[in-house]
Amino acid sequence: MSRLCVASIGAGRAGLVHARNIARHARADLVAVIDQNAEAAQRFAAEVGAPPTYPSLEEALAAGPLDAVFIATPTHTHRDLAVEAAEAGLHVFLEKPMAISLQECDDVEAAAARAGVVLQLGFMRRFQPEFAEAKARIEAGQIGEPMIVKSLTRGPGLPPAWAHDLSRSNGMLAEVNSHDFDCVRWLAGAPIERVYAEVTNRKGAARGVTADQFYDNAVVSLRFANEALGTIDGTCPADYGYDGRVEVLGTEGVLIIGDVRGTALIEVRDRTVGAITPIHHGWPQRFAPGYVAELDAFVAAILDGAPVPVTAEDGRHAVAAVLAANRSWQEERPVRLDEVTAGEVTA
Amino acid sequence: MSRLCVASIGAGRAGLVHARNIARHARADLVAVIDQNAEAAQRFAAEVGAPPTYPSLEEALAAGPLDAVFIATPTHTHRDLAVEAAEAGLHVFLEKPMAISLQECDDVEAAAARAGVVLQLGFMRRFQPEFAEAKARIEAGQIGEPMIVKSLTRGPGLPPAWAHDLSRSNGMLAEVNSHDFDCVRWLAGAPIERVYAEVTNRKGAARGVTADQFYDNAVVSLRFANEALGTIDGTCPADYGYDGRVEVLGTEGVLIIGDVRGTALIEVRDRTVGAITPIHHGWPQRFAPGYVAELDAFVAAILDGAPVPVTAEDGRHAVAAVLAANRSWQEERPVRLDEVTAGEVTA
Amino acid sequence: MSRLCVASIGAGRAGLVHARNIARHARADLVAVIDQNAEAAQRFAAEVGAPPTYPSLEEALAAGPLDAVFIATPTHTHRDLAVEAAEAGLHVFLEKPMAISLQECDDVEAAAARAGVVLQLGFMRRFQPEFAEAKARIEAGQIGEPMIVKSLTRGPGLPPAWAHDLSRSNGMLAEVNSHDFDCVRWLAGAPIERVYAEVTNRKGAARGVTADQFYDNAVVSLRFANEALGTIDGTCPADYGYDGRVEVLGTEGVLIIGDVRGTALIEVRDRTVGAITPIHHGWPQRFAPGYVAELDAFVAAILDGAPVPVTAEDGRHAVAAVLAANRSWQEERPVRLDEVTAGEVTA
Amino acid sequence: MSRLCVASIGAGRAGLVHARNIARHARADLVAVIDQNAEAAQRFAAEVGAPPTYPSLEEALAAGPLDAVFIATPTHTHRDLAVEAAEAGLHVFLEKPMAISLQECDDVEAAAARAGVVLQLGFMRRFQPEFAEAKARIEAGQIGEPMIVKSLTRGPGLPPAWAHDLSRSNGMLAEVNSHDFDCVRWLAGAPIERVYAEVTNRKGAARGVTADQFYDNAVVSLRFANEALGTIDGTCPADYGYDGRVEVLGTEGVLIIGDVRGTALIEVRDRTVGAITPIHHGWPQRFAPGYVAELDAFVAAILDGAPVPVTAEDGRHAVAAVLAANRSWQEERPVRLDEVTAGEVTA
Repeated sequence: MSRLCVASIGAGRAGLVHARNIARHARADLVAVIDQNAEAAQRFAAEVGAPPTYPSLEEALAAGPLDAVFIATPTHTHRDLAVEAAEAGLHVFLEKPMAISLQECDDVEAAAARAGVVLQLGFMRRFQPEFAEAKARIEAGQIGEPMIVKSLTRGPGLPPAWAHDLSRSNGMLAEVNSHDFDCVRWLAGAPIERVYAEVTNRKGAARGVTADQFYDNAVVSLRFANEALGTIDGTCPADYGYDGRVEVLGTEGVLIIGDVRGTALIEVRDRTVGAITPIHHGWPQRFAPGYVAELDAFVAAILDGAPVPVTAEDGRHAVAAVLAANRSWQEERPVRLDEVTAGEVTA
Repeated sequence: MSRLCVASIGAGRAGLVHARNIARHARADLVAVIDQNAEAAQRFAAEVGAPPTYPSLEEALAAGPLDAVFIATPTHTHRDLAVEAAEAGLHVFLEKPMAISLQECDDVEAAAARAGVVLQLGFMRRFQPEFAEAKARIEAGQIGEPMIVKSLTRGPGLPPAWAHDLSRSNGMLAEVNSHDFDCVRWLAGAPIERVYAEVTNRKGAARGVTADQFYDNAVVSLRFANEALGTIDGTCPADYGYDGRVEVLGTEGVLIIGDVRGTALIEVRDRTVGAITPIHHGWPQRFAPGYVAELDAFVAAILDGAPVPVTAEDGRHAVAAVLAANRSWQEERPVRLDEVTAGEVTA
Repeated sequence: MSRLCVASIGAGRAGLVHARNIARHARADLVAVIDQNAEAAQRFAAEVGAPPTYPSLEEALAAGPLDAVFIATPTHTHRDLAVEAAEAGLHVFLEKPMAISLQECDDVEAAAARAGVVLQLGFMRRFQPEFAEAKARIEAGQIGEPMIVKSLTRGPGLPPAWAHDLSRSNGMLAEVNSHDFDCVRWLAGAPIERVYAEVTNRKGAARGVTADQFYDNAVVSLRFANEALGTIDGTCPADYGYDGRVEVLGTEGVLIIGDVRGTALIEVRDRTVGAITPIHHGWPQRFAPGYVAELDAFVAAILDGAPVPVTAEDGRHAVAAVLAANRSWQEERPVRLDEVTAGEVTA
Repeated sequence: MSRLCVASIGAGRAGLVHARNIARHARADLVAVIDQNAEAAQRFAAEVGAPPTYPSLEEALAAGPLDAVFIATPTHTHRDLAVEAAEAGLHVFLEKPMAISLQECDDVEAAAARAGVVLQLGFMRRFQPEFAEAKARIEAGQIGEPMIVKSLTRGPGLPPAWAHDLSRSNGMLAEVNSHDFDCVRWLAGAPIERVYAEVTNRKGAARGVTADQFYDNAVVSLRFANEALGTIDGTCPADYGYDGRVEVLGTEGVLIIGDVRGTALIEVRDRTVGAITPIHHGWPQRFAPGYVAELDAFVAAILDGAPVPVTAEDGRHAVAAVLAANRSWQEERPVRLDEVTAGEVTA
């Protein structure tokens, strides 16, 4: 096999970022778009070279050969789709959060293991140049041992309705901050042991979403297995723009990753306003190099036997941390990740 | 009275910053340096125009007229010195932390009230131009309602020995992070209601300080009375330099205050190293304008009857937050500030 | 025609940047690498998917169909190669500087016009996001009318030997600063009318290059037809790294484009050193998005009939400005661009 | 003498900056404000503690003892005032530009030498921390030998009417860019040998100022005696704010001094606008530490016999460079500084 035949499952925004990169890739072809919503699937396909569309993976498989799928659907569908794909012998790229519960994560991992297919999770920040450079410096000992690791994500615009329906998602900490939970663990070099979360619902009421279902601000304290501490904060919607920044303080120095300011352009027109620099408009633009590089890694894992850089274990850890954090604010106490049970969901 | 006669009590680093500013002030004269340690007092005096030195406030008062004192001694001495000064009719500028317990804070406040003297607390960040500008913008509604307020302080060098002796201090959160506790409340526009803290001792062992007495890293989650959330983190020693930064996310925008980079100078010599910008070397330099402006405000409160900008209530709130945070890591649970009792100390 | 068959002529660094992008392009295939030096051609081809190599365009044409060529050879070969390609009916992408003399520029332009092929010049900065955004803002009137336009380019490493052999190149101002001459005119919105240049040879002696042939520092004053003024400065080698920055001051504001600092990463380890940010290592990395976008534009001009964004006139103007600047430092006086004669070269 | 009695001559903006610093100085008293315009003198005095005002130096001397004067009057009055002060035995701090012609500069220097008084010129940028740090690094060899030195100054607001009356001033290059001419020479470590200037009048017409009298934009090429090259650009009014930045490229590295962005505060409210940072509003704020430090140096030169840090020779060199630059744009050719004659003025 020298080129991969890839199907994109889920005609949403995250799927589109991947599908565009697949369509442009030198070693992969986008051969199918899969979504129950035929209209959405066709609109999506029109933006990526108009591959055929199908309502289900089953029908796509019937139509022709497939090597791999990208799954970027609502979280509660991940388990079944990923298991189905793995059982069909397809390599699986699975967006975050991995699934709704640890049991679901285990089901996916087991199915991939049984099938002997590649299973890669969608934590693209690890591939973003400034993040990868920071990780390399930490591993080289440039800042000594990590002591405090902080990460924030703020996103403009409301998440989709299912993301604050607790029967289909574990809420903002899952949908927005999964990246932070993965990133801090990766940079700290140790699993998260205990979390404490505070949340509030500040803008939901104006949108008719009650506090029971919804929170739009969170701060989470972290304690890692190697004694590092940390914080995560998340806000969505943060109308000012998309913002994702990380800071790692070590025993010998500090790394500050990311900047709310984007393009290297300064404009000054009015001295009472000040100097203006464009910011990042959204995650597809902010992490564009990361998305390309994680696809390259997935292709290399399949075609070249390269190691899978982001594994089921990584996806599972982020799910455990989110579930612990949600239980923390519900029970108003710190929660250890090993308290989370296999079938536990936040609802 | 057109010029103030001021005594500086405490021949340490913080006292020196104030004493230098007093000696240069157009409406104040530094007329006495007071410290039990005669040698330290003389060394200190030599740097600020050589005013006479005394072992106690009593002896200084006997030697000539005084209008005001700056108290920058170890925390456990604050209550007695401040009460003595107030009872002698002197205006009191009191460094942070205000005292060891809430009872001591109340004693100081009551003494000042009885004597009718000005009592101002040493939270100079409020006077620092970028902090003051941020506060003005928040009050003008530029970023809407505060949702998340974050503050960090990291300092090079060990704190003095008494600062991690829990019979004389409430530890790093008191000695280093009092500024953060004050600043977040001031910027959030509401008192802190509940805190949760995680701490570690990462460098103490190498210095022979055991974990029982000591922690050198802390992250604290905050919940404010107006539903804002927040975090504080502190590290001391952070050998890379002095760093103090704050971020306020509101419903309509964000303010990022401070930069680890200092002087507006970039040097590039080696492309494998990168572009280098000097950083702040310590708090006296980092907050130099703030120290000058808080002195101006103190002088104006005394000579012109201007309102006292930082009050006993401000000092007391920071002490309460520190005590709650310390109890939080000791009891491994979130602690409300109203749980802190009058005589409570961390020890 | 739905995909372009493209040959890369010139097995050097600039050619490689283009060839890599062609090999990855969705609408183009790299089908030939052409260089007289067979070994260099093969080394080059090995890095871009191993297309066949040829010693000449003639032999490549004999081997199979070609639609377009990228010419990235030493400047003195541009005219003949571009004319040969155009006469063979091939679309031509021609690296800067366009040619050695205005007569050569005219020859190339005439050949392309006769053949009816696309001729695009390699000024990739126009396609770099921050430059394109600045141009859009200027055209939208955000900073009023341009008054002063400044541009600098500094490059690490020596240019190739032919670049300071005045029988084969017009020197550093041509080889390094052509980009600046094009960019300032494009941003000023008017041709350069008059230039004055000062040059020095500071590092050549250590490399056995005499001042007669060589200068490695230049500052150039500019006067544009619309009364804007400007400066260009160039240095090569500037061992500290690659640096290209532009500033446009208008009647209503200012735009500062580019930053010596690259990746959004800050590291602090030592307070006596300061905060360190990686810089750009070279032009292929610094202008990577610009190189991709100029290729997209070339493909679109051929396949979709889109307008050619950088024309022979643009290339010719930069050559005229370089020749005038070289005459200026030789004659120690300001030189108007209309003084430059058709056959004039600097030698 | 332990405290200096100082008079401020010239009730304008620059005088006020000095007078405020003198009034606050520990070793100096502001004892007189001198201006022909009694009303202006009184308004000025009211802002600095209300010292007595006088219409002339003569009357001030008659009223009481004086040790030193600060002269911040229109340039054409500098020579007579400085000579008068020196002949009265007063130490002289003289604002830039030193005088209208080299002859006048020589007259001032000779008078000070005869009287044995301190004569210090007002180039405060040398005392600004980031400039002083850059100079120290250059002298320590951090960036090797200077190759290119660039400086710009842009000011909001029109200069006073006399500043573009060529019988009273040598125009914008003198009034605004004297600082740049001094600064580049100081940082390059060698005198300017030759200049070439281009100027335009872009906003004068709208204000009824004809091109004969006026230019509001200039770019100047520089060649130094040690083979370094440079550029200066000036614009006044530049309505966007006050901006002064310098860059020094050496054989081993580069230093970038200053930033259009001021206070370390970032605000983002609207993703279509971007991140906003306050800028410097004017030179009194931008160079506040420099003004304080140059006063300290003047006081130390008088009271402690410290070396005078900015001398008549420095002032004279900047005047020569300005006169050469003005002749350059008038004669449309590069002009050597040694072509400037003793009595030459631009008019």
